[in-house]
Amino acid sequence: MNTTAANTQSILSSEEILTHWQGHRGLTRRVIEAFPEKELFEFSIGGMRPFSEMTKELLAIAVPGLTQIAHDKETELEEKRDELKTKQDLLNAWDQSTDEINALWKLVKPERLREEINLFGQYNNIGIKSVQYFIDNEIHHRGQGYVYLRALGIEPPYFWEH
Amino acid sequence: MNTTAANTQSILSSEEILTHWQGHRGLTRRVIEAFPEKELFEFSIGGMRPFSEMTKELLAIAVPGLTQIAHDKETELEEKRDELKTKQDLLNAWDQSTDEINALWKLVKPERLREEINLFGQYNNIGIKSVQYFIDNEIHHRGQGYVYLRALGIEPPYFWEH
Repeated sequence: MNTTAANTQSILSSEEILTHWQGHRGLTRRVIEAFPEKELFEFSIGGMRPFSEMTKELLAIAVPGLTQIAHDKETELEEKRDELKTKQDLLNAWDQSTDEINALWKLVKPERLREEINLFGQYNNIGIKSVQYFIDNEIHHRGQGYVYLRALGIEPPYFWEH
Repeated sequence: MNTTAANTQSILSSEEILTHWQGHRGLTRRVIEAFPEKELFEFSIGGMRPFSEMTKELLAIAVPGLTQIAHDKETELEEKRDELKTKQDLLNAWDQSTDEINALWKLVKPERLREEINLFGQYNNIGIKSVQYFIDNEIHHRGQGYVYLRALGIEPPYFWEH
């Protein structure tokens, strides 16, 4: 396994990266909450997925991805979560993931984030770049959720406050 | 001026943060390109801004924000750019910003990114957190641009490939 050192002074600590991620996750939780029950599972624009399905993708990536980083054991990308049928189901799964991410993060040494990891057996990258992708992908889909909310006449949470 | 050290091993180098940012900016450029001329300036959903206006916001933040970080001199947030009237105008401004960001970044020492900076005289944060906000805000609005494109029946660029 290759390890690539970041070759200049530290810019961000491991704790700060976790705080950044969980800050975004807190905002995404408020976006899930802002959807009416029915529209969360049914509303879409331009043939895209409802926000519930995007949420399931985010759930499928975060804990399983971080589990592979923490335990160096390949996990599966499983976006089909038919058991999550209500907004409360999604919020409960979200909150459980929040706790699991915090617990898993404690197992990830900073140097592990510089190791190459073939995530889900298909995305080969150093650990920190996979974590950046988890966060960026969440922001991307949450931005789409903002448009859905606006199209529904609902004021989304303020982006800055997370 | 306070300096807060990241207190663990380096996770990301300054060069990697620039590469990450410019990777996202390259993808946003492709999203601007994907819009038809008229819809770039006129199409919107739910009372939101057209993607041209979001692009102007991103232009208003990136170079002026980084200029303040590089030169420690307060800059203005100026989102009104009436001179940018066509897609090509926006793309030219985008490319000019790309070069300016690369040049400014060379002036920013890693330790500067740990200093508190009151950006645009109103957003007080350590430098790296402002840069993270620049990137996150761009991903957020670009995700909204994806919905606009889908609503227009246009396939957006693939998110992963940047």
